[in-house]
Amino acid sequence: MVNFDYQTPTRLIFGKGVISNLPDVMKPLGKKILITYGGGSIKKIGLYDKVKELLKDFELFELSDIQPNPKYDPSVLDGVAICKKNDIDAILAVGGGSVLDCSKAIAAGAKYDGDPWDLISYKVLAKDALPIVDILTLAATGSEYDCGGVISRTETNDKIGYMDPHLFPVCSILDPTYTFTVSKKQTAAGCADAMNHVIEQYFAEETTLLNDGFCEATLKSLMHNTKIALEHPDDYQARAELMLDCTYGCNGILSLGNSPSGWPCHAIEHALSAYYDITHGEGLAIITPKWMNHILNDRTVDRFVKYGVNVFGIDHALEKYEIAKQAIQATYDFFKSIGIPMTLHEVGIDESRIDEMAHHIAVNEGLDQADQTYVPLSENDIADILRASL
Amino acid sequence: MVNFDYQTPTRLIFGKGVISNLPDVMKPLGKKILITYGGGSIKKIGLYDKVKELLKDFELFELSDIQPNPKYDPSVLDGVAICKKNDIDAILAVGGGSVLDCSKAIAAGAKYDGDPWDLISYKVLAKDALPIVDILTLAATGSEYDCGGVISRTETNDKIGYMDPHLFPVCSILDPTYTFTVSKKQTAAGCADAMNHVIEQYFAEETTLLNDGFCEATLKSLMHNTKIALEHPDDYQARAELMLDCTYGCNGILSLGNSPSGWPCHAIEHALSAYYDITHGEGLAIITPKWMNHILNDRTVDRFVKYGVNVFGIDHALEKYEIAKQAIQATYDFFKSIGIPMTLHEVGIDESRIDEMAHHIAVNEGLDQADQTYVPLSENDIADILRASL
Repeated sequence: MVNFDYQTPTRLIFGKGVISNLPDVMKPLGKKILITYGGGSIKKIGLYDKVKELLKDFELFELSDIQPNPKYDPSVLDGVAICKKNDIDAILAVGGGSVLDCSKAIAAGAKYDGDPWDLISYKVLAKDALPIVDILTLAATGSEYDCGGVISRTETNDKIGYMDPHLFPVCSILDPTYTFTVSKKQTAAGCADAMNHVIEQYFAEETTLLNDGFCEATLKSLMHNTKIALEHPDDYQARAELMLDCTYGCNGILSLGNSPSGWPCHAIEHALSAYYDITHGEGLAIITPKWMNHILNDRTVDRFVKYGVNVFGIDHALEKYEIAKQAIQATYDFFKSIGIPMTLHEVGIDESRIDEMAHHIAVNEGLDQADQTYVPLSENDIADILRASL
Repeated sequence: MVNFDYQTPTRLIFGKGVISNLPDVMKPLGKKILITYGGGSIKKIGLYDKVKELLKDFELFELSDIQPNPKYDPSVLDGVAICKKNDIDAILAVGGGSVLDCSKAIAAGAKYDGDPWDLISYKVLAKDALPIVDILTLAATGSEYDCGGVISRTETNDKIGYMDPHLFPVCSILDPTYTFTVSKKQTAAGCADAMNHVIEQYFAEETTLLNDGFCEATLKSLMHNTKIALEHPDDYQARAELMLDCTYGCNGILSLGNSPSGWPCHAIEHALSAYYDITHGEGLAIITPKWMNHILNDRTVDRFVKYGVNVFGIDHALEKYEIAKQAIQATYDFFKSIGIPMTLHEVGIDESRIDEMAHHIAVNEGLDQADQTYVPLSENDIADILRASL
């Protein structure tokens, strides 16, 4: 088991109607609140009005139109400017992972004198950040329970995941009923995102019985409940379990003491959505089975066997490689079954920029480092995985 | 799924040699540190000297001889007196769950003007507490990652579990090598304690696929690794995994969103160790299968089936009650196989005070409340379970 240093101080208030806690949660943080949100779906479900009503005693500011794959320019820059100009005390992010990720970058940028990109690109470590509270409307990224975010910078095709312990939300308000109206496409993409978070941690050289079991349970719960939620979007139990499943995705609790895995599918997918602005979860679902095929070998086959037997119930009496191949196929089939387009062509990506992306990934993501990655990937490996995904 | 409000802010620093972080962890907390410990095993393994050396720049005070089933009088009272007299800034608990539980009561008592029993008995809610750091030497109670403790008061036969959010340790320093010298008896009792923590949460009316999976993984890891640790006390991987397994036992993360279970075996066992001062984990191991037998019925049988199939690998094709009975027997057999005395007689308890204890439990533990307990237990039920355990 590998040494670790773990802390997740975020408070989770979970369940139907828990938004009533909002004023008490915000009160200790100050008077001037920046509310951040996306394209307006929070208005359609009445959440925007509810928030305004509950916070009528606060001084409210707004940043709207935060996009999926949230952008440094304009969203982060605009948010930081609002915070600095108005001396904002705290940020309330209302939306999914993109709104929250963007809000984290704003929270750090607001307390930094230079260009926020210095922080996102780790040129400078954040010394402080505004406190963040979120009201989640999409189960997917796990940003509500971690200190990280992913920000895209269009002109350089950069999509960078950054983490900083100042960026744990103070409190995440998690009401599964806010996800009832999430579309089939986004429900499926959220499931794929969360499943990939687990898979990235499960496929590591050194793991534990405990972590493996936690990961397997999370995967099974995600698959089972996504099927229900797609058929019955307002099934509370399914939406609630999905929301909690996703929460554990990225704060490390599923892999405490595991050796580093390198999160290779994320590293690869970040380039896809940086270059083509595709839906992150769909990109991950397309890449994952192809990455699995690529890394299956005598050193990794036992991991695939455990995955296949414990997650998909494949007969453990079969030959090892047969189990592994069935497990990879089952992964593909599940994503396909929930309606995800399973080729890059279907999401509008052709082979024209494959080599360019593979180079970008190889230069920026460090996937060739043997001590940091389950199976190191060269630029050629990355290009092969991308081509297999076309 | 039931609404919940969850937060565990404790930092976990885990692994071989992580004690080197101690000065940095203590520094922000103040200069005057009360070190609390038990009977001196920390001196035998060199940990006491190491702590003194690392904290040579602090002003150190000591409270030693904290007993298993830690006592209000003298330990809590003495500790509070030392803190008040010397204006202690923080407590460093070095030992197992008993030392830590006692230190939590001291931490709250030190910031309260009245009798600390007011806090422990919930007559008064704590408004503040001294910060606590711990260096764990025994994997069992999970006190290193929760805000609760259990304190015994000999003259009234009270053993009370109390919780207060001020009592989360600031940081738990978890080095599995400190548990290499834990005796077979205590290793087994620690495993039984931790297993029971999981079982108490698993047996609930409303659960989730996720929580069930987390619980099953924790139970399987505990059983597998205890067997290894008993045979090879210095197997790092086994001791490390046991330490992490136990950490999750009591902070609620294994049952977020589950309906209340009532923790009946704990409620019953607390009376056993209050009256007879037996080893807590052994008392739990004795009670658990008898409680299971007592509550097995048409409403609960499916839960036992899931437990039997997923934890012990019992054939799911068998008849439901057959699986349930095999699962209960397997629970008993496992505890027996790790050397736990499995009758109350073996731990020095006869039938003379059964009715008195049953009455004490019935009056104080609220196990008859249908909305708070998986299967409500009357005074007669409790007496039956105790008699079956003789």
